[in-house]
Amino acid sequence: MLLLSLAFAAMAVAQNASTSLTPATTTAFDAGVPTDAPIPGDYNGQWRPQVHFSPPTNFMNDPNGCFLDGNGTWHLYYQYNPTATVAGNQHWGHATSKDLYTWQNEKIAIFATPDSQIFSGSIVIDTNNTSGFFPNQTDGVVAIYTLNTAAEQTQEIAYSFDGGYTFTNYTSNPVLRASPPSNQFRDPKVIWYEDHWVMVIAYSQEFVIGIFTSPDLKEWTHASNFTSHGLLGLQYECPNLVSMPVLGGDSMWLMAISINPGAPLGGSITEYFPGTFNGTHFEAVDAAARIADFGKDSYAGQFFYGLPEEADPVFIAWSSNWQYAQQVPTGPQEGWRSAMGLPRRSYLVNNATRTGWALISVPYDLTPILLPSPLITNSSLGNSTLLADYSSVSSGALYFRVNVTNLPPLAQATGTLNFTFSSSSTRESVSGGFYFSGDNPFWLSRQNVLGFSQTNPFFTDKFSVGNVLNPDGTFTLEGVIDRSILEVFLDGGRNSATATFYPEGVLDTVEVRTSGINEETVVAVEVWGLKSTWAEQASEDGIVYGNVGSSASGNATQVVRRKM
Amino acid sequence: MLLLSLAFAAMAVAQNASTSLTPATTTAFDAGVPTDAPIPGDYNGQWRPQVHFSPPTNFMNDPNGCFLDGNGTWHLYYQYNPTATVAGNQHWGHATSKDLYTWQNEKIAIFATPDSQIFSGSIVIDTNNTSGFFPNQTDGVVAIYTLNTAAEQTQEIAYSFDGGYTFTNYTSNPVLRASPPSNQFRDPKVIWYEDHWVMVIAYSQEFVIGIFTSPDLKEWTHASNFTSHGLLGLQYECPNLVSMPVLGGDSMWLMAISINPGAPLGGSITEYFPGTFNGTHFEAVDAAARIADFGKDSYAGQFFYGLPEEADPVFIAWSSNWQYAQQVPTGPQEGWRSAMGLPRRSYLVNNATRTGWALISVPYDLTPILLPSPLITNSSLGNSTLLADYSSVSSGALYFRVNVTNLPPLAQATGTLNFTFSSSSTRESVSGGFYFSGDNPFWLSRQNVLGFSQTNPFFTDKFSVGNVLNPDGTFTLEGVIDRSILEVFLDGGRNSATATFYPEGVLDTVEVRTSGINEETVVAVEVWGLKSTWAEQASEDGIVYGNVGSSASGNATQVVRRKM
Repeated sequence: MLLLSLAFAAMAVAQNASTSLTPATTTAFDAGVPTDAPIPGDYNGQWRPQVHFSPPTNFMNDPNGCFLDGNGTWHLYYQYNPTATVAGNQHWGHATSKDLYTWQNEKIAIFATPDSQIFSGSIVIDTNNTSGFFPNQTDGVVAIYTLNTAAEQTQEIAYSFDGGYTFTNYTSNPVLRASPPSNQFRDPKVIWYEDHWVMVIAYSQEFVIGIFTSPDLKEWTHASNFTSHGLLGLQYECPNLVSMPVLGGDSMWLMAISINPGAPLGGSITEYFPGTFNGTHFEAVDAAARIADFGKDSYAGQFFYGLPEEADPVFIAWSSNWQYAQQVPTGPQEGWRSAMGLPRRSYLVNNATRTGWALISVPYDLTPILLPSPLITNSSLGNSTLLADYSSVSSGALYFRVNVTNLPPLAQATGTLNFTFSSSSTRESVSGGFYFSGDNPFWLSRQNVLGFSQTNPFFTDKFSVGNVLNPDGTFTLEGVIDRSILEVFLDGGRNSATATFYPEGVLDTVEVRTSGINEETVVAVEVWGLKSTWAEQASEDGIVYGNVGSSASGNATQVVRRKM
Repeated sequence: MLLLSLAFAAMAVAQNASTSLTPATTTAFDAGVPTDAPIPGDYNGQWRPQVHFSPPTNFMNDPNGCFLDGNGTWHLYYQYNPTATVAGNQHWGHATSKDLYTWQNEKIAIFATPDSQIFSGSIVIDTNNTSGFFPNQTDGVVAIYTLNTAAEQTQEIAYSFDGGYTFTNYTSNPVLRASPPSNQFRDPKVIWYEDHWVMVIAYSQEFVIGIFTSPDLKEWTHASNFTSHGLLGLQYECPNLVSMPVLGGDSMWLMAISINPGAPLGGSITEYFPGTFNGTHFEAVDAAARIADFGKDSYAGQFFYGLPEEADPVFIAWSSNWQYAQQVPTGPQEGWRSAMGLPRRSYLVNNATRTGWALISVPYDLTPILLPSPLITNSSLGNSTLLADYSSVSSGALYFRVNVTNLPPLAQATGTLNFTFSSSSTRESVSGGFYFSGDNPFWLSRQNVLGFSQTNPFFTDKFSVGNVLNPDGTFTLEGVIDRSILEVFLDGGRNSATATFYPEGVLDTVEVRTSGINEETVVAVEVWGLKSTWAEQASEDGIVYGNVGSSASGNATQVVRRKM
C-alpha cells in the first residue's frame, strides 16, 4: 500500500515537478476550484506551523512571484493545488504580509484550466510602463510564469492594475517558447538590469539556464546560456539571478539553481554560484558546487523583487522534498501538505572560511513574533544542562539562540553543545549537536520521531555539515522549531538546514546541554516562545478563511540591513 | 560517553585524515609495531567481510600504491595503524591477490616512526629505469607517498627491488615540498604519460590539485593546477588522474577527487571530472560535479597502476566514512575496523542518460568466488516474491542479480522491485527498491539495523538516486552483500552505492519482491552464494596470519574488457 502510493506519487511528481497559468483572469474558467468561495483553513493541527506560511488547505509547493510592493507589503504566491493534497491542477495561490511571518491568505491569483496548469514564475513591478499595460500608474504588476500543457511549456505574462491581487492575461501570449518547442522549459525569474529586463529560465533536462533580455516583458531575446554547472541531478529548476551585497565589499551576482530529482541526499536541493553579470552573460567565480541548505527540506527558493537597492536580498523556499512531499502525514490527518521555510535575509561573504564564497542566510527579523519575555536566559551555562517545559507556549514554536564566546585558539577547543526538543508523552525528539573539536561537525537528527520516518524509504534521518570554527573564538547556533519544521543557522547563517518531522506526540520540552567545553569559554543561551501568527487572525470558530478579498494598505515595513 | 568518544575521534580524524612513510626500510625503526612478528587475523567475526579485503587486526583506511605486477599479481597497500583500532601511527600495510578477491596478507611494507607517519600515495613500475635505482631490472617498483610530521607534509619515494615487498628509502628525500612548506599537501598519485611521469597531489585546504611532472621520479616540476571544481567539502584528498576508455569511442581522462569532511551526506565522498589531459594540463569537459557512489561508504578510491593499455581501469575504495570509521562496533567487538569495497572495473560513457558523462563501475569478475551452483534462479518472476534461507552459505556473502527486460516505453512502466536481506532471529534487515514509474528512484536503507545506527548521529540511514530508465526497456540491479557491507550496481554500474551496517543478528534470509510490474515485463533473478576467501587460507586454529613472508609468483590474471 505504501509502495503503491509512493509509486503513484512519483508519477505525479514527474508531471508536476514545477509550476505556471492559463490565459485567464481570476474570474475566468473554474475547473471545480473555488473562485470566490472562502477556503477554510484550520491552522490548529498539531503539525501546522504557527510562524511559517502554509496554505489554508490542500497542496502547496514552490514560492512564486515574490515581491515587496511600494506600501511595504510582501506578496507571496505559491504553486497551489486547491483541490487535493497532492500536486496537480496547479494555480497561483496568494498571501500577503507586513512582517513576512504574519500572513493573510488572499484570493487565488491565477487559475489553472482543465487543459493547462500555471507553473512557477516571478513578478516584477513595471514602474516605467515598459510593457505599455500601465499608462496611468507606476505600480503596475506583471507576472511571468510557465503555462504547462500536455504538449509544451511556454512562458506567459499577466498584468495587474491592483497591485497583484487580480490579473489579466496578456492577449498575445505566449511571450516565449523554446526553439524547438519543449515540454521541459520553465520557471522564468525576471529582474530589471539598468535599462532592460532579464529572465533566467531552465531548460530543465538539458541542464541549461537560458538568459533572455527584453525591453518590454513581451519580446524576449536569447542572450546567453549558463550550462552544466555544479550538481546536475536529473533536472534544473527554478533559477534565480540576483545582485548580492558582499560583506565588507562591493556587490556580486548570485545564480541559484534548484535540482530535482537527483540531489546527493535524494530528491530536491538548491545550489548557488557567486559570479559576475553584465546584463547578458553570467560568469561563475569558479567551478565549485555550493549547496544552500544541508537539510533535505529547502527547495525552489525565490528572491523577492522590489526591495530597496540598499537592502539585503530576502528569499523564501519550499520546506519539503519531492521524494516525499506528497506522502507526508499532514495530508490525511490535517488536510494540507507543505509549508514555506522561514523568510531569509541573505548576502555573500568571501574568505569567511577556507572554502571562500558562501551565501549567508539568516531568519528575517523575528522581533514582531517574539513573545514578550524569554522562556530561558542563561548568560553563562558552563558545562551544564538547561531543561525547560514549553507546553505553556501555545504556538509550540520557539526561537533559540546559543552564543559561544571566548573559545581557545583553534585546535584547542573541546567539548560539545547539544540541543533536544522532545515530547514528554512519547519520548520522541528532534535534536542536534556541535563538536568544538576536530572537524567541527554539526549534526541534526529526526531519527527519534515515530511514524513517517519508519515507513518512507526517502525520509532520511540525519544531516550534518562541517562548520569550521571562527578564528575570533566565537560560535553561534540559532534556530526556530515550529511544530513540524526545524531550521538551524550556524555562525550567523554560514551554514543552515531545514528539516521537517511528524511526531506522534507534541514536543514540549527543550534541553540545551554542554559537555567538556573549555573552562574559560562562555555559553549564553536564550529561548523565546513565538506568537501564533495564525491564531491571531482566526475567526470565532478557530478557522482562518482563505481566498477572501483583501486590499493593499499602508505602513511600510522596515527592511533590515545585514550585520554579521 | 559516546559523545566524548566521538569528539576524541573527530580530533583523530583531523590529524590523520589521510596518509604516507618515514625514511625506513621494512627492517628499520620499530615503534612498537611488529616488524617480522606475524599478525593474527581472525576473519570469523559476524561482521568480517568474506570476499572483501580487511586488515588482519586494527585500523585501516585509504588504499595506497595499488598496482598490477608483471606476474599478474595485484598489490594493494593500505593506510594501516597496526597498533590500535583508530587512525594514527600510519604504516603501509600490504596484501596481494591473483583475483582481487582472495587476498594474502603480506608484511607491512613501509613503517611509521615515532615522529612521522606514512600517509597515502601510489606506486609505479619504473620499467625504463628512469630513476636510476634499477640498473639490472625492468620491474623495479617505486612508491611515492606523503611523509606526515607535526610540522609538514612532504613527498618521499622508496624503491623496491623485489617487486613491492620490501622498500628502501631514497636518501635524498623529500622529493617534493610545497612552497611555502605546508602541512596540508598530500596523497601523490603518479602515472606515466608518453615520456614523463605525472603526479597529481592535493593542496587539501586550498582546493587545488597540483599537477607536477618529472623525468625520473626524483625531480618534480610544477606544471599546472586544477582548482575549486565541484563539491569542495572542507578538504580535497586522494586525487587520481587516469586515462579512461569511453564506451563506443576513444578514450578520455578522468580526474577523481575525494573530499572530507563536508560531503553533502556528511563526511567523506568521491567526485569525478571527465576531461582532457595533454601531459601537463587537465581540463574538465564541463563545470558539473559528479559523485562516484551515492552511499556514504566509499572514499579515497585508487586506480591500479600497470594494467595493459587495452584493459579497463580497475579501482578499489575504502568502505567507510571519517564521520564514524573510528567508532564502528567492529573495533571493540572484533578487533578490526574498515574494509575495502569491491574492486571495480570502470570506464566512461557519454549520453547514456540526459546527464551525459558518467563513470561506470562494476564489480571485477566475480567468477572465481561464486559457489558452484546458484542459490536461486528464476527466469520469469512476474509479480511475485522469492524468499530463500541462505544460512547454509557459510560465508554469509551473496551475489545477486535481477535482469528486467521488455519494459514498456518510457513513462508507461509501472511497479516496484524490492529486495531485503534479513535476520530470522532479530528481524533486522537491509533493503532496497526501485520504482519503474515516475522519476525512477532507487533507495537503499540500513534503517532497520539495531545498534550503531541508533547511537551514532552521523550514521545516515537512507540513500537514494534517480536512475532514469534505459530507452531499450531494460533495467538491471546487481549487488554483493558481505556480512557488514552491501554494494549495489544499477544498470551495469551507471549508479552504484556502498553501505556498511552492523546487525546484532546474522542476516540469513533473502527476499526479492516485485509488485505492479507491467504484464509483459520479464524479471529474471539469480542469487549466488560466495566462497569465503579468508576461510580458505586460515590455519588450523582458524586464524589467518598476516605480516608473514611471501614472494611473487606466476600465473597471470585475466584482465577483463568492458561490456555494457
